[in-house]
Formats: sequence, structure tokens, C-alpha cells
Amino acid sequence: MKAFKATFLAVALSVGFAGATTAQQNEPIKPIPPAEVTDKAKVELGKKLFFEPRLSKSGFISCNSCHNLSRGGSDNLPTSIGDNWQQGPINSPTVLNSSLNLAQFWDGRAANLQEQAGGPIANPMEMAFTHELAIGLLTSIPAYVEEFETVYGTKEITIDEVTDAIAAFEETLVTPDSRFDLWLNGDQNALTKQEIAGYQLFKASGCVACHNGVNVGGASYQKMGVVEPYTTENKAEGRAAVTGVDADRFNFKVPTLRNVEMTYPYFHDGAVDTLTEAVDIMGRLQLGRHFTKEENAQIVAFLKTLTGKQPEIVLPILPPSADETVRPTPFN
Amino acid sequence: MKAFKATFLAVALSVGFAGATTAQQNEPIKPIPPAEVTDKAKVELGKKLFFEPRLSKSGFISCNSCHNLSRGGSDNLPTSIGDNWQQGPINSPTVLNSSLNLAQFWDGRAANLQEQAGGPIANPMEMAFTHELAIGLLTSIPAYVEEFETVYGTKEITIDEVTDAIAAFEETLVTPDSRFDLWLNGDQNALTKQEIAGYQLFKASGCVACHNGVNVGGASYQKMGVVEPYTTENKAEGRAAVTGVDADRFNFKVPTLRNVEMTYPYFHDGAVDTLTEAVDIMGRLQLGRHFTKEENAQIVAFLKTLTGKQPEIVLPILPPSADETVRPTPFN
Repeated sequence: MKAFKATFLAVALSVGFAGATTAQQNEPIKPIPPAEVTDKAKVELGKKLFFEPRLSKSGFISCNSCHNLSRGGSDNLPTSIGDNWQQGPINSPTVLNSSLNLAQFWDGRAANLQEQAGGPIANPMEMAFTHELAIGLLTSIPAYVEEFETVYGTKEITIDEVTDAIAAFEETLVTPDSRFDLWLNGDQNALTKQEIAGYQLFKASGCVACHNGVNVGGASYQKMGVVEPYTTENKAEGRAAVTGVDADRFNFKVPTLRNVEMTYPYFHDGAVDTLTEAVDIMGRLQLGRHFTKEENAQIVAFLKTLTGKQPEIVLPILPPSADETVRPTPFN
Repeated sequence: MKAFKATFLAVALSVGFAGATTAQQNEPIKPIPPAEVTDKAKVELGKKLFFEPRLSKSGFISCNSCHNLSRGGSDNLPTSIGDNWQQGPINSPTVLNSSLNLAQFWDGRAANLQEQAGGPIANPMEMAFTHELAIGLLTSIPAYVEEFETVYGTKEITIDEVTDAIAAFEETLVTPDSRFDLWLNGDQNALTKQEIAGYQLFKASGCVACHNGVNVGGASYQKMGVVEPYTTENKAEGRAAVTGVDADRFNFKVPTLRNVEMTYPYFHDGAVDTLTEAVDIMGRLQLGRHFTKEENAQIVAFLKTLTGKQPEIVLPILPPSADETVRPTPFN
């Protein structure tokens, strides 16, 4: 892909001219550090579980179904398809760089990735399984028992181990070396003039007040519709569903803008298909600002520089079920 | 996985003792030669298309959904889940080594992989798209247009190119170096005594009459239920649906036994979960032979030696949709 060729060229250039460049240390957006894998066996186990459809009632839906690592860690649908083709209530957020968020889910109801990972497995609208059935299933498969024992030192598989391993895998799903990060790291040639103008406007007009830090978002909860209300048929309450505080109604975790070109459609209801429209709506509703066509194009051009190096995932080979393994029940 | 460690060890041994071994040249089963990739760009494009959910109406189902390369190229369901959670009419056959079959689908209605690949995209029970919509979709995505041009020398994307690329990728999905193939190639230590006994029984009792050649099947159509009838609620007619000849009723392409440990459940209706039961039924219905428990276990042990080296697939990164790209419609 052209974008990646450009990235690699830019890496080469930034290395080549390292002495002549100056990192942008005072910018409100920070580069993503590469993932450090400390427990390779755990990450490999977590990868298997992430791709494991047998953690669903149907044997058809895995984490990767809605957080597709071929597609920016998202399903590119307004709301997801769950067990028995049920329509999910909210847009599936990207799993990429999710370890950099202050909490998980749009309303932040899970404190961390491990807490998140247990949710969809047991959600009747999503994978529609139970933790007990998931543990029973994994325990019936000798290769899994062996692998859990290698990682956790015990033959007893627990849901805490399952979600811990999935979280460990997800922590590796960061996307460093976007062209914007190369620019932050001092490669002046990594961005075009239009892209730099877009970034300046992104800062000057206030977008950066919420979309900042290493994940360009994910660090706070903010109201959807500050200056003008956002109209949607989506029933999500936002943060109020967690705090019970009415003032938190329609407060959502600010989504990351990392890889935003790949994670359409946008907003918690997935109602908006294009970055052009998303930037226009955000400008008006959150900032009271009507971007001109040229300004909009500049910001969109900047946003596309946030696409980082996608994790290189070798598809795991899942161990076959044993004779005793309980079979999936997709149609009843 | 333990099986792979054993395989690699066996490879090392077979290389180490090459001078002392004799290949089994007169066996009715032949080893799988490794895939030869002649057009890497085409295979890469085909891989993207194989993993491309946008070739379905819902934007959710790809070739890999039902021919999951993490799971022996199958979905391990009796019959597959299609668009809107429709229940498919027949068990999804493995895509692994499918280039070695005489034709595609259980009834052989597609002469080759390219002809097969167009089917599920346009089948209203499966991906529920149309070839026209698929071409329109791909043509709207600049990175795809560029990639097709690199491979086919034209900016005009056609369904023949799409299916040709998918077939080229599928041709790489062979699984050489099973323990059985190492044994065929002369490594006497690759199989246990029980496994060799199982193979001898597999030959002596007549299984090998249909399950032979490089794909241990896939080379002929045979009646399901020769000695005793097979009872099933599945409505598939078999080969008769293609030939219109009544005598072909319930004739199906003999499935490959390569990787059969991974491609459960068994038979065209996916009614049987375990190899033990499948071997018992096949013995009685096809050969009029009641295998003892010990004999059954020997044959099952042999069948598990047919699990080959699974293709190492680096997950493709799919190019994002453009603003103009038509969006999927999963819920209407």
C-alpha cells in the first residue's frame, strides 16, 4: 500500500537526517511508543482467544468479528452484528491503541482492557455465551489446557486468566510510526503543507482540547453536543449510565483519532460515514465553528496522517475441539 | 502447538537421516507438494479479497467467515451462517488443499476454484451481494484500483479478475509436511505403530478406494450410503442436481481427509461431531464393516496424522472505503 511505502521512506529519511531534525516536544499530541512484549506466550494465547469463535454461543463470533484487525480494529458498521444477527446498541470502538484510553467502552464502564474483555462474551446481544460455558469449553480442549498451564502455571482455566490473556494481546495492538508521529519526532518532510495547516487549525479551533495526548483522545469524557445538541435515535445515555448522575447524560469517552481514516463510521451511533461530515458536525456542535470547505479539507488531511503502522498479525491456528467439547448452538 | 513441534522435529530427523530412508512410492496416498507462488502480487490481492467483508451485503461476512484459516479452512458448524443469520443448506467444505479436488462444492457444480469463488458472493443465503455491487464497491476504493492495475494491467476491475485473484490465493492454501507425508517421504519414525496399523486397516478395509491420491479424497463422486442408506434431514441432492441424472442422487464429491481432525463436523450435512463416529458410520454404510473399538481407534489415530502444516497467513490490512463507497446494509 502506498501509505506504508511512504511511511517506510519517511522512517528512512528521519533516520538518515536524524542529526538535522528537532523533535516537537511541546505539542499537545504525543507519539505512540512501540509495544513492548514482556510475556510472549501470554500474548500468543491472548491472540488465539481474540480470534476464538468458540467463545460465542454460535461458534461464529469472535472478538475479531467486531474489532477486525484487518480494518483498523473496527467492523466499519454503524452498530455491530451480534448473536442471531441482533443489532448492537452502539458503534464498536477500535481496539487499536485502546490500552491508551482512560477506561473502556463509550461510557467508560470498564476500568481496563481486562474488565472489558469479559463483557461481550457474556452479553446476550453480542457473543451470547456465559463465562462458565467459555471456561468449560476451553477446559475440554487439551491444547488450551496445556497453553494456559504454560502461561499461568496451573491447569485450572479461569475467566480472569482468559481476560488477562486477551488484554495482554490487546496491549500489543498499538500503531506507532504514523506520518504525524514521524513529524512529531522531528521529520519535517513527513507532512505536507496542507496537513500541517490542518494540524494548526485543529489546535487553533479547539479540537485539540479533547483530542490530545498520545491517543489523540481517550483521556476524558465530554458531552456530545456542547454548542448545539446532537440529534440521534440512538438510545445510549453515555456516562450517566455508569455514574447515575443526570449531568453526565450524553457524556461519552472522547474517541481516539488514531487511524480514524480506517474506523468509520463515526460517533457513538456510527451515523456519519465520512471524515468530511464528521469534522463539519464536530466543528458546529462542539465548537460553534463553521469550517470552510478548504479548512475542512485541511483538517481531514491532517487526520489521515494519524494512520499508524498496523499490527502485523499472523493468524493463529486454533486447536480443534475434543470429542467431549460442547458444540455451538447457532440456530437454537 | 505440540503437533507442530513434533512435525518440525520429524522434518529435522527426516533430513538428518535422509540417506537411511526410503520413500513409500507405491502407496495409494501421495504427499502434498508445497505451494509454488508464481505471482506474489496476485496472491496478496486474492488474500485481501478472501478476507474482505465488503464483498457481502452486510459488510460482515467474508470468505474467511465460513472457510476460517484459523480452523482448518472451515467454520466447524454443521451448516454455515449466512446473511441475516440464515442457515446454510450444506456443510462448508474446507478451503485447504481445495485446488487438489477434481471440482468444487459437494456436488462439483463449479469446475474450479475461480468458478467457485463467484458463488457465495452472489448467493442470497450466503454473502447476499451481487457481482455488480462487488465490482462497484472495489472500483470506488483507490487502493484496490491501483492493486488490480498492478496485477491485471488495467484499471477496470471485473468479476473474472476478482475470482481469479481469490483462486490464486486459495491455490497457496495447501498443507504439506503432515506426519503422514513425512512417513510417505521415508521417515519411518514419523508415525506410531498404532497409526501405521490404522493406515493398513484403512487400506485393507477399503476406505482407500475413495479416499486416495494426494488429497486423500476429492478425486471422485461416490454415493453416500452404499451398503446401508444414510438417513438425514438434509435436502441436498448431490451430483444429481448438476447432471439431472437420477442415478446420481446422493452422489457427493468424496471429501478430502487432509486436516480432518480440524474440519469437524463431518459429512455433507455436518451431522457427525467426532472422527470416532464418522469412521464407524463410514465403515458400516459404505463398506458393510463393523470396526471394533480398537480398529476404530487405530483408523482415527491414522487420520490425525493427516494434519499438515497450516498456511502461515499474515492478516491483510484492507484499504478503507472512500467517501463515495456504497455502505453495507446489514439490517435492511
